[in-house]
Amino acid sequence: MMQDKLNAGETRLERGKRALAEIDGAAGENVVAALADIAPDFANYLFEFPFGDIYSRPGLDLRAREIATIAALTAMGTATPQLKVHVEAGLNVGVTKDEIIEIMMQMAVYAGFPAALNGLFTAKEVFASRLADEQAVPT
Amino acid sequence: MMQDKLNAGETRLERGKRALAEIDGAAGENVVAALADIAPDFANYLFEFPFGDIYSRPGLDLRAREIATIAALTAMGTATPQLKVHVEAGLNVGVTKDEIIEIMMQMAVYAGFPAALNGLFTAKEVFASRLADEQAVPT
Amino acid sequence: MMQDKLNAGETRLERGKRALAEIDGAAGENVVAALADIAPDFANYLFEFPFGDIYSRPGLDLRAREIATIAALTAMGTATPQLKVHVEAGLNVGVTKDEIIEIMMQMAVYAGFPAALNGLFTAKEVFASRLADEQAVPT
Amino acid sequence: MMQDKLNAGETRLERGKRALAEIDGAAGENVVAALADIAPDFANYLFEFPFGDIYSRPGLDLRAREIATIAALTAMGTATPQLKVHVEAGLNVGVTKDEIIEIMMQMAVYAGFPAALNGLFTAKEVFASRLADEQAVPT
Amino acid sequence: MMQDKLNAGETRLERGKRALAEIDGAAGENVVAALADIAPDFANYLFEFPFGDIYSRPGLDLRAREIATIAALTAMGTATPQLKVHVEAGLNVGVTKDEIIEIMMQMAVYAGFPAALNGLFTAKEVFASRLADEQAVPT
Amino acid sequence: MMQDKLNAGETRLERGKRALAEIDGAAGENVVAALADIAPDFANYLFEFPFGDIYSRPGLDLRAREIATIAALTAMGTATPQLKVHVEAGLNVGVTKDEIIEIMMQMAVYAGFPAALNGLFTAKEVFASRLADEQAVPT
Repeated sequence: MMQDKLNAGETRLERGKRALAEIDGAAGENVVAALADIAPDFANYLFEFPFGDIYSRPGLDLRAREIATIAALTAMGTATPQLKVHVEAGLNVGVTKDEIIEIMMQMAVYAGFPAALNGLFTAKEVFASRLADEQAVPT
Repeated sequence: MMQDKLNAGETRLERGKRALAEIDGAAGENVVAALADIAPDFANYLFEFPFGDIYSRPGLDLRAREIATIAALTAMGTATPQLKVHVEAGLNVGVTKDEIIEIMMQMAVYAGFPAALNGLFTAKEVFASRLADEQAVPT
Repeated sequence: MMQDKLNAGETRLERGKRALAEIDGAAGENVVAALADIAPDFANYLFEFPFGDIYSRPGLDLRAREIATIAALTAMGTATPQLKVHVEAGLNVGVTKDEIIEIMMQMAVYAGFPAALNGLFTAKEVFASRLADEQAVPT
Repeated sequence: MMQDKLNAGETRLERGKRALAEIDGAAGENVVAALADIAPDFANYLFEFPFGDIYSRPGLDLRAREIATIAALTAMGTATPQLKVHVEAGLNVGVTKDEIIEIMMQMAVYAGFPAALNGLFTAKEVFASRLADEQAVPT
Repeated sequence: MMQDKLNAGETRLERGKRALAEIDGAAGENVVAALADIAPDFANYLFEFPFGDIYSRPGLDLRAREIATIAALTAMGTATPQLKVHVEAGLNVGVTKDEIIEIMMQMAVYAGFPAALNGLFTAKEVFASRLADEQAVPT
Repeated sequence: MMQDKLNAGETRLERGKRALAEIDGAAGENVVAALADIAPDFANYLFEFPFGDIYSRPGLDLRAREIATIAALTAMGTATPQLKVHVEAGLNVGVTKDEIIEIMMQMAVYAGFPAALNGLFTAKEVFASRLADEQAVPT
């Protein structure tokens, strides 16, 4: 896990790019690419603060961090594109599909049934899309 | 952990009371007591749905559930009394103080610095109150 | 009205299914069907707590309950699919189209003009869809 | 009810003042007084748009309007002082204490248990304060 | 700028229509047209309160007012259609594209990175649409 | 203004400390001091990202940045302590009291009357506190 290998001499930008690639994979790259022609500096801030600073801190493992993020974005209900990215990210760092569904159901308690339902349908969409990608891989 | 022992024949209300006592301790009891003269049925719903149904599900352990709840309540910023209860609850089920602080700092990324700051100051208050309680225990 | 006939011996699940069918009609069934392959337990919670517990309580009639729900979902602005379901539900339990529009206009006062506008356009879409359904009925 | 007597020749400001006095009573006057030295124009807007325009419309009675407002403010969770005013207002226009509690419990479904709990405790405070006022009335 | 010429004898409705036309242009007209068959009175309230009252006040120029509105709608994250209208409006009253991007990046601090990202992608869409309109003008 | 003098060789932390001192003054120092015993790293992030990165960017002057922040925090309604800091900050960088009141009244349009009222009462409190401080200065 990238949190174990904080390379000496690495800049926040380099560390953040490495963390974003590990956690978000292609979904993170797409966000950065979409910013290129409108706010390229913001892509750097995205590498540096969330990923170079926060996710790279050793005090909480990436699995716990993604549980926290999936819960928060589901509860807020205003960040569907980012919730999709973090459902992917959760799967990438070891949160299972069943656990993601547990987190979203739990959000009914704190943010209401609509927030939980919209989260569940977002997860359903991401799961289906990953399945389609996997099945499209040539043998 | 109570999730391991779903007693046959136990009602949702009984199971929820047991779960609330284990997770929230005295803080949960205070909420229930405060509801007694205005909405006693709501205390039962609180036992039954969040605790008897959701927290008792075996698919996600209580530590992960409290990470999710602390993250969501910090991000929402509209539930300070409940965040206090769940900082306590997190500590009760094995989330450390340092991990709670990590979760709250991470919420700066998703809900902004004010949400993170207000969460951190809420945690600070709960930590200080627990310390005072511990030091007040007669020897 | 289903609140008048709390059948002895009926479970929360049965009562909730009956209430959801009466209030939400086909729109409620669609939500439950969409949950079947991802979170079937959550469909049960949806029957049991919101409909079996809350909407079945005799202290507030269904018309008043839908006025409350339409107002809240319009003000929150994060639950468009659920607002559609409850515009339908309101019409099903005796809230008129004109009253739904009054509720949404009133939300401009409490949640701002964008929340009211987005609510009004959601209502417009539901009204148009119901009209199309009615006109499609063969004679 | 003031909605029945839209006086010809009355300005929006006059109509709004009459509506605010009828609906919110002393609580509304306190808000207006608190604005006097900082934003007196805003007190006029408050009379004119919410009360002179919206609450004076005949298409929805004041009881239904207060049910909508109490639901929305409870769900939003960011407007405790205004929720207090509208718990009072609800009681003034014929919503009972038990109905207010039903509305707030229902908000657990749409905005989560913390929003409902915080609403219930706000209502409890208003009910207690009114009781104290009533008991203080000299005989 | 319309704030300089508050015509004596002009009604709030007239003043609001003039302000809306100057600030929002065609985007404002589209909103009003969409309300015509469902809530025509609400179109009048929209002219009168936001534009006839608030935007017409001389104490803050339209450029500053649009900076405030773009910031608030980006932070709230629940009003994408209205944010589009106000990105247009900002450009109409002298806020530059680069300044709009600065405002949205700043919202990452107060409302989180998802709110900022969704604002930036909304701006990108409006900028592209205006460019297409300009290039479509026959010579 | 600090945006004019981006010193070569200055770190983000140094630049952020300088910006925070100029913009927020004592109010910013208090926040940093309160973090010292619970999350000192978060104080550094606060210096570095919001102030070292965002507020130090030359594309938008500090007056416009504070207009944006005051608008957003008023609309969100979940960040009263931070709104107080930024009412102070606005006054520090040239936004007048009357302009702050205009911004808050405008938020009634986008986030509702309660958000605007709560913002106005927060501003009233800050203005009164500054006046008391000024009058307490010995001559």
